Amino acid sequence: MGYTVAIVGATGAVGTQMIKMLEESTLPIDKVRLLASARSAGKTLNFKGQELVIEETTETAFEGVDIALFSAGGSTSAKFAPYAVKAGAVVVDNTSFFRQNPDVPLVVPEVNAHAMDAHNGIIACPNCSTIQMMVALEPIRQKWGLDRIIVSTYQAVSGAGARAIEETKRELKEAVVDGVDPKDLKAEILPCGGDKKHYPIAFNALPQIDVFTDNDYTYEEMKMTNETKKIMEDDAIKVSATCVRVPVLSAHSESVYIETKDLAPIAEVKEAIANFPGAVLEDDPSQQIYPQAVNAVGSRETYVGRIRKDLDAEKGIHMWVVSDNLLKGAAWNSVQIAETLHERGLVRPTAELKFELK
Amino acid sequence: MGYTVAIVGATGAVGTQMIKMLEESTLPIDKVRLLASARSAGKTLNFKGQELVIEETTETAFEGVDIALFSAGGSTSAKFAPYAVKAGAVVVDNTSFFRQNPDVPLVVPEVNAHAMDAHNGIIACPNCSTIQMMVALEPIRQKWGLDRIIVSTYQAVSGAGARAIEETKRELKEAVVDGVDPKDLKAEILPCGGDKKHYPIAFNALPQIDVFTDNDYTYEEMKMTNETKKIMEDDAIKVSATCVRVPVLSAHSESVYIETKDLAPIAEVKEAIANFPGAVLEDDPSQQIYPQAVNAVGSRETYVGRIRKDLDAEKGIHMWVVSDNLLKGAAWNSVQIAETLHERGLVRPTAELKFELK
Repeated sequence: MGYTVAIVGATGAVGTQMIKMLEESTLPIDKVRLLASARSAGKTLNFKGQELVIEETTETAFEGVDIALFSAGGSTSAKFAPYAVKAGAVVVDNTSFFRQNPDVPLVVPEVNAHAMDAHNGIIACPNCSTIQMMVALEPIRQKWGLDRIIVSTYQAVSGAGARAIEETKRELKEAVVDGVDPKDLKAEILPCGGDKKHYPIAFNALPQIDVFTDNDYTYEEMKMTNETKKIMEDDAIKVSATCVRVPVLSAHSESVYIETKDLAPIAEVKEAIANFPGAVLEDDPSQQIYPQAVNAVGSRETYVGRIRKDLDAEKGIHMWVVSDNLLKGAAWNSVQIAETLHERGLVRPTAELKFELK
Repeated sequence: MGYTVAIVGATGAVGTQMIKMLEESTLPIDKVRLLASARSAGKTLNFKGQELVIEETTETAFEGVDIALFSAGGSTSAKFAPYAVKAGAVVVDNTSFFRQNPDVPLVVPEVNAHAMDAHNGIIACPNCSTIQMMVALEPIRQKWGLDRIIVSTYQAVSGAGARAIEETKRELKEAVVDGVDPKDLKAEILPCGGDKKHYPIAFNALPQIDVFTDNDYTYEEMKMTNETKKIMEDDAIKVSATCVRVPVLSAHSESVYIETKDLAPIAEVKEAIANFPGAVLEDDPSQQIYPQAVNAVGSRETYVGRIRKDLDAEKGIHMWVVSDNLLKGAAWNSVQIAETLHERGLVRPTAELKFELK
């Protein structure tokens, strides 16, 4: 007896990767259902050689669903995830909508799988840029404690969806082949679909991901701060981020500076990372070995390298962290949460509905 | 009566920009001489509508030269700059070779022009990534002091020369138009011409600029550390850098975190930067105004934005600093040094030769 698994947002950049991750998953699956907007309903997508017809996401679409993976934007999750829970499904939500809800565990399975044990029907998957940083830093936090994090990101455009990928390719073709001055390229999506102005990403680095908050940080930056505290269950960890979009299609890179609570010898830090599930140490300057975005694409792992002591702060360490934002940053972490729910016997209907039906 | 100005390395990515900066310079110029390797000798380049024949750089090529701008690599400067000084010229050297020499001032004119007053014939132009950071931070250092700097860079490929620009364009065309998987692209230059292995830059972010030093930092990173201390004349300033190449043709971006000695109110920091020569404040999150590489190309200014307090450290400030690495980062800073030498009456032969003739 396997599960019925639904993917909400099946046609998106993350949704298509969720299909792939489910195809390769150890989860016992009887049936996969693909949900999307009315616009995509009736089209088909392939799952293990079968053409599956896409259904419209509605309040009544979740009957018989055991696990629902949501990745169709915050408003879709806000509206439909409670109906999925009411219908008896466990929701793994890849949007930001429920992440700071105290009734919702925010989970990177290697780091805090235990947080799911008392779930209320919805598990949130953290933001892509947070997840890979957690995989790199948790082995350090466990042994030496974490006092502060300063991170600057180099984020891929696929985090902004399939249309951002197409926009980037078009801009690069116009700039490289047609000789258009990059500043004259027309942009409609980036830096962020929901904001007023749009800027070219070809030959550019855009220090805005998501819209700005009142404190002059962007929501993406505040996600890294707030999600880190929730996942590591420590509000005292200091985190400040600068999130930047670069002309990379997939795989986020991060320049991470940390200060540990106890002194952490670099050789032991490297060993701890190498031994941590989901993390891969790629660190040999003498052989020019360090993580690279192009090598991480298609992999579920988080790659860590350039690990070195700060030149002045005794407990300061710098590192370079790379992972595929669509996989560990989204689709794989979501499917991995589903697998972990199964392994821990947590795929079950929720008795009391804690989320508002809108 | 004007000067005879020589450009050594006239055919390179920086050399061609030096020609342009000299064409637009206020410096009184009688004659421009273009020097390069034997390979380029005999070819011509245009200066203010005149075709100038390129000469080979030799030990005896500097007779009659008043100002020699060097940008042909460290070994060329090491070999020929002392001969230029011996012939009576003042050398402005854009390579790293003399930067840490105690007899050589290392100058960003807006920051430490006074350091040239007792020059010995050679003035060094700092590394591109250092210069723009100095323009952004000097107004802060002057008012509140600087305790530490943590910087992560997003550096353009033109810093690695004209061949790196061509390599990047070729790779992007192969990846975007021909559909080559980025990790299968062939690279011969980047991350750094002088190292053993070469990696694609298309859709990638390479955390290596220049070769590695013994402490697992790269030379580029150590340049930012050591040059900052020399330019700001304060060995106590703590600086740790992570230098990263991104698929941008020109203009470096930097995510800069600082801690000041005294508490610096953000509004006053913005005002100090806006009023500092060479710096332009571009900072209005409500209007999505922040510095962008594509907008900085071709400009002599350094653009600063995303200025905000650290979320935890009372004296911590984050910012985003962008400038054209070939102009303020190299050609313009060199020509600006020449202009400043002229303004301060410092274009004169040096009596005692302090540099070894090889």
